Amino acid sequence: VTDVFVTGVGMTHFAKLEGASEAALVQEAVALAIEDAAVEPESIDAVFLGNVFGAGGLGQIVMAASPLAGKPITNVENACASSSSAMLEGIAWIKAGFARRVLVIGVEVLTGRFGGLLPIAAADPYSRQGMTLPALYALKARDHMEKYGTTPEQFAAVAVKNRRHGTLNPNARFQTTTTVEEVLASRLIADPITMLQCCPNSDGAAAAVLVAEDLVTDSRAVRVAGSALGSGKRRAEIGWDEATLRDTARQAYGRAGVTAADVNLAEVHDAFAPGELFAYERLGFSEPGKGGPDVESGRFTLGGSGPTVNSSGGLIARGHPLGATGIAQVHEIVTQLRGEAGDRQVAGAQVGVAVTMGGSVPQLETNACAVHVLTTR
Amino acid sequence: VTDVFVTGVGMTHFAKLEGASEAALVQEAVALAIEDAAVEPESIDAVFLGNVFGAGGLGQIVMAASPLAGKPITNVENACASSSSAMLEGIAWIKAGFARRVLVIGVEVLTGRFGGLLPIAAADPYSRQGMTLPALYALKARDHMEKYGTTPEQFAAVAVKNRRHGTLNPNARFQTTTTVEEVLASRLIADPITMLQCCPNSDGAAAAVLVAEDLVTDSRAVRVAGSALGSGKRRAEIGWDEATLRDTARQAYGRAGVTAADVNLAEVHDAFAPGELFAYERLGFSEPGKGGPDVESGRFTLGGSGPTVNSSGGLIARGHPLGATGIAQVHEIVTQLRGEAGDRQVAGAQVGVAVTMGGSVPQLETNACAVHVLTTR
Repeated sequence: VTDVFVTGVGMTHFAKLEGASEAALVQEAVALAIEDAAVEPESIDAVFLGNVFGAGGLGQIVMAASPLAGKPITNVENACASSSSAMLEGIAWIKAGFARRVLVIGVEVLTGRFGGLLPIAAADPYSRQGMTLPALYALKARDHMEKYGTTPEQFAAVAVKNRRHGTLNPNARFQTTTTVEEVLASRLIADPITMLQCCPNSDGAAAAVLVAEDLVTDSRAVRVAGSALGSGKRRAEIGWDEATLRDTARQAYGRAGVTAADVNLAEVHDAFAPGELFAYERLGFSEPGKGGPDVESGRFTLGGSGPTVNSSGGLIARGHPLGATGIAQVHEIVTQLRGEAGDRQVAGAQVGVAVTMGGSVPQLETNACAVHVLTTR
Repeated sequence: VTDVFVTGVGMTHFAKLEGASEAALVQEAVALAIEDAAVEPESIDAVFLGNVFGAGGLGQIVMAASPLAGKPITNVENACASSSSAMLEGIAWIKAGFARRVLVIGVEVLTGRFGGLLPIAAADPYSRQGMTLPALYALKARDHMEKYGTTPEQFAAVAVKNRRHGTLNPNARFQTTTTVEEVLASRLIADPITMLQCCPNSDGAAAAVLVAEDLVTDSRAVRVAGSALGSGKRRAEIGWDEATLRDTARQAYGRAGVTAADVNLAEVHDAFAPGELFAYERLGFSEPGKGGPDVESGRFTLGGSGPTVNSSGGLIARGHPLGATGIAQVHEIVTQLRGEAGDRQVAGAQVGVAVTMGGSVPQLETNACAVHVLTTR
């Protein structure tokens, strides 16, 4: 069974893109990824597309005018983890011998849908009664505050860090810094979460070219060292424990042969700032309960004692076009491991982790959790 | 890289099931498949669910109350080929070493949606102008009639055969026979296609347990000998050629090490009767242009000189709950290869082929084409 490598990545600017179509966004991201991989489109054996709210058969629709029409195309939907899950399928096809070179795409046109409001509130009785995603994160945040003394300022520090990182990433939606005071003074969404601790809905696409090891020709290729997927464990059994993230990360670390201490950088799912703080602890970057002091100390900021978390700006600054986020995280890790991240380069980056948490199912901790551990070749 | 086997299958009755939920249908089909495979649910490593029109995160939602909550769950959407495509992912995960035992599910609650009318007509400008799926099949049928002298009676013979087969399958929606005269006298949908040559929208679910070879313990296991997926080639280039089906089948035959002459039975995509007739020729069962005379002669009927096509009744008699159809086809092939098909048993069945064609993309021949070749162990 072959190892798998990322040889090309590409993404659009993430933003509110009036009138953008999935086809146009995909075309832009795919052209960049294919150019970066220096391959002919015809040499790609299969396509996997992650998307949440687009039309049925979206992968076939957006590829209809490309040289890849006719190749195997598979649409994957795992909420916010859609393109991370699509990447797992691409990896599996290469390892299974079904393909030697695959294209994985994430795309979402979100800001023009639903009058800007996600339809989740209408989807189930829990949401209709107020148990929306920010409310869920807020309850977990209050639990963390009561157990460990975590403060609102510490959650706010996540947003401050990520907005600062975002100013160094030209693809990020937000290009300005903010302060703890500004974050805490912004509109209260679900106590303790304020507006500036929420990721902005965005439009965008990202793409990656994955190949079998024998097709790797240069030192810029990044190894997919270990990947894992979990769906949410039952909340009735695990409470607010974030056990899904912990166990899925452990599985991916194990497959990659790394430990948390080896990780130099991570892209994690800061859809709401507390989510990132929980991730420090579940990924093994902080002792249980110490995520708050650690982020406040600057440990996870560029140049901190590391690992650097969300050097791209994360969902909070880069924006969150649901289906595109997973591959955008991979885009950042690949760029960093290649040493091509410019002003936001993490020094000596050799091991990076991308973690996507997919939305909400009332009884479950999350819809899906996908973890990819990438390493220098 | 291990071979993959089907060790359990289960399905619901396909019908208009008032008030049925995806969760209840899945629960029924999965319980049957797991019982058939004689495994504990906890021993399953991953779940793949194919569905077209259900809610986002459907796999996680329908598994939330099951012992499989927490396992990796991936939702796949490739129009009518959704669960056939999901099966490819399950196979790939086993071959890749990501899982040793997977559950593949197809489900659709269709009859209660859209007032019974599929929304495809609103989806694109071609459909809005009348280029709907039956119209596309009708144009292909007219082309075949002009080229080869195929007659309306020959297309009708497909429906007559499949309705007859359906009376032998307790899971089929239609349980009565029909005649060529009745088929031709039924309402004209798109000349030459009449109502009784169209599959009925239906609700239902089907499931299969797939395992790595070293987990096979008994002779009822069926080998997944070769699988392939293609998206539709560009219609501007191939015209009405059905090249996607031909080339995808060739790839699957090649992987399985079989030829058309080895095939004892096939489940093919008779969403509209002409589709099955084209399949005879593209799968290598009939010489080009000879599909009409061959079906009229009874060659593909149970007890004919074979291969037997759609012994289950096919989409026309079994019904077509989009996402569930692919695994229902696999259910039939597995049942036949085990020699457990009762009154509809194909004598000496050793090699079976399941073919699903997924819906329509205006510029493409089809959305997706999935082919699985199954053989006795």
